[in-house]
Amino acid sequence: MKALVYTSVGQMALQDRPKPEITAPTDAIVRVTKTTICGTDLHIIKGDVPTCAPGRILGHEGVGVIDEVGPAVTSFKKGDHVLISCVSACGKCDYCRRQMYSHCTTGGWILGNKIDGTQAEFVRTPHADLSLYHIPKGADEEALVMLSDILPTGFECGVLNGKVAPGASVAIVGAGPIGLAALLTAQFYSPGQIIMIDLDDNRLAIAKKFGATATINSADGKGVAAVMALTEGRGADTVIEAVGIPATFELCQELIAPGGIVANIGVHGKKVDLHLESLWDRNIAVTTRLVDTATIPMLFKTVAAKKIDPTLLITHHFKLADILEAYATFGNAAKTKALKVIITN
Amino acid sequence: MKALVYTSVGQMALQDRPKPEITAPTDAIVRVTKTTICGTDLHIIKGDVPTCAPGRILGHEGVGVIDEVGPAVTSFKKGDHVLISCVSACGKCDYCRRQMYSHCTTGGWILGNKIDGTQAEFVRTPHADLSLYHIPKGADEEALVMLSDILPTGFECGVLNGKVAPGASVAIVGAGPIGLAALLTAQFYSPGQIIMIDLDDNRLAIAKKFGATATINSADGKGVAAVMALTEGRGADTVIEAVGIPATFELCQELIAPGGIVANIGVHGKKVDLHLESLWDRNIAVTTRLVDTATIPMLFKTVAAKKIDPTLLITHHFKLADILEAYATFGNAAKTKALKVIITN
Repeated sequence: MKALVYTSVGQMALQDRPKPEITAPTDAIVRVTKTTICGTDLHIIKGDVPTCAPGRILGHEGVGVIDEVGPAVTSFKKGDHVLISCVSACGKCDYCRRQMYSHCTTGGWILGNKIDGTQAEFVRTPHADLSLYHIPKGADEEALVMLSDILPTGFECGVLNGKVAPGASVAIVGAGPIGLAALLTAQFYSPGQIIMIDLDDNRLAIAKKFGATATINSADGKGVAAVMALTEGRGADTVIEAVGIPATFELCQELIAPGGIVANIGVHGKKVDLHLESLWDRNIAVTTRLVDTATIPMLFKTVAAKKIDPTLLITHHFKLADILEAYATFGNAAKTKALKVIITN
Repeated sequence: MKALVYTSVGQMALQDRPKPEITAPTDAIVRVTKTTICGTDLHIIKGDVPTCAPGRILGHEGVGVIDEVGPAVTSFKKGDHVLISCVSACGKCDYCRRQMYSHCTTGGWILGNKIDGTQAEFVRTPHADLSLYHIPKGADEEALVMLSDILPTGFECGVLNGKVAPGASVAIVGAGPIGLAALLTAQFYSPGQIIMIDLDDNRLAIAKKFGATATINSADGKGVAAVMALTEGRGADTVIEAVGIPATFELCQELIAPGGIVANIGVHGKKVDLHLESLWDRNIAVTTRLVDTATIPMLFKTVAAKKIDPTLLITHHFKLADILEAYATFGNAAKTKALKVIITN
């Protein structure tokens, strides 16, 4: 089968690989019909993710049709139309029982990382019963690809951890796909303000279209003053960090109101400064989370009820045969204005 | 009247000062019968608290008898026996309505800081209706002095923010009075383990007596390994920082289990490193809080029901005339083994 393989630092290739086989009774084999590329895939190719070794088929998002199931799989059968979660969960370990699927002792984020992933014609999905979801008849496949990772990540790590509340103020630092996913899902809770902060006017314009009540280009160094002007000098009740570098985390600390939460989504490669000398008495919280995809069933319902349109995030379409072009487009978003790309097999 | 005054950096004196008067209709004047000294008072004298100017009467804890009330005070009258909260709260501002009394726009921690405090024969208490509490007949005054600040601080900033839960593991870094207050109040929630970490064997012995299930002297650099050995390698579900320096905050980050909370109580004078490069995907939270004393009514009931004995924290007694000796004793705890001292007038 065709598969996109991370071959060495900085390199990838579309290769012919053997079709995967059931190796555990809880496995399923899924014929992937649609997948996408995540910012994390770009990090892997740069060599930033030590758990992912060269030779790995990338991809942890997608939808498809069940081709085969192991003997212990009871919720799915050949021919079922399914969504693949980016997180595999046994459902039995202590972490799974707390819905911390990302920390499943035999799962977590392993697809396209520690085991072969979804950017291929077929994928083996471990712990199929808890890691796949039935797709209702008539549902929009492309919308659901956004539920494998990006929407639950923005929602769980940003909106839920940040306790976005009706009438409250939300500031989102970073208007990339993940910040936009937080922006879309924050609106479930009817905040009074959603202030989007970025350095890219194009992305801020998209944020405005997606429901931001205000947008701030912080390139002039006046981002904090602008947020304070919008919040009676208090700062935002929820600040969502959707970039993952020390400078943006620093900005988040300056934007947070007393009693507020800085909800980190960004994948950080370095330590950051935490200004406890000014924050120790501010009744704030800083939260971190690897997406658990525990909210996929909830997000399914929001899509069905048309409370959210995940296809807003999709800007480009490619065939699996053209996945290298898809990577080039996604990896040069400043020029191509790509958000999420759909790859069809 | 006699009053302990912060006179200049490093200096204090017991002075004769005029008896305070009602200046706002919501004020009360309280004749202080018992007060105590807080670690924060020592910080003030060192010059670490810029909001507190020389000339200030110190003290933000105590019990007493109402001497006079302003015309707007409706819950108290002359002769009432009262507990004084370290936090003054108007009850009307946005923060007060969220029980964030510490951020009251016309109150907060002002006693013995921005206005004269309780280490005197009399004190003016602003916003008396929400900042004083009736003491039931027969209650132990000395026990209740511990409810002005130290017990609600350990409880709110450590135990409540840290979401101590039945059966869970708790690690408390710092076995000083505030760490011990967290230790005492953590037991309300029946955690499975409370591991106390300090460098002072005397304080660890007290912690053991107060209910710690394990004590660790981390002077040998093996504190993390010891906690991991006690928690099946996971770390503690709640880690309470009760010191306030970068080294102890660093230790807390190494002790926290996936899904856990680092609840900061310590007063920090410097920024700290936050290791988001290893914590971004660990589903943890770091919380801060200035005590709101919102739980004083709850703590009153725990004392009445004998669920906690706050007098365990009291090691020394002095008269107001000897308050300089009380400061010397409290300030040299390594030698005197002082925890909290009671000053009687």
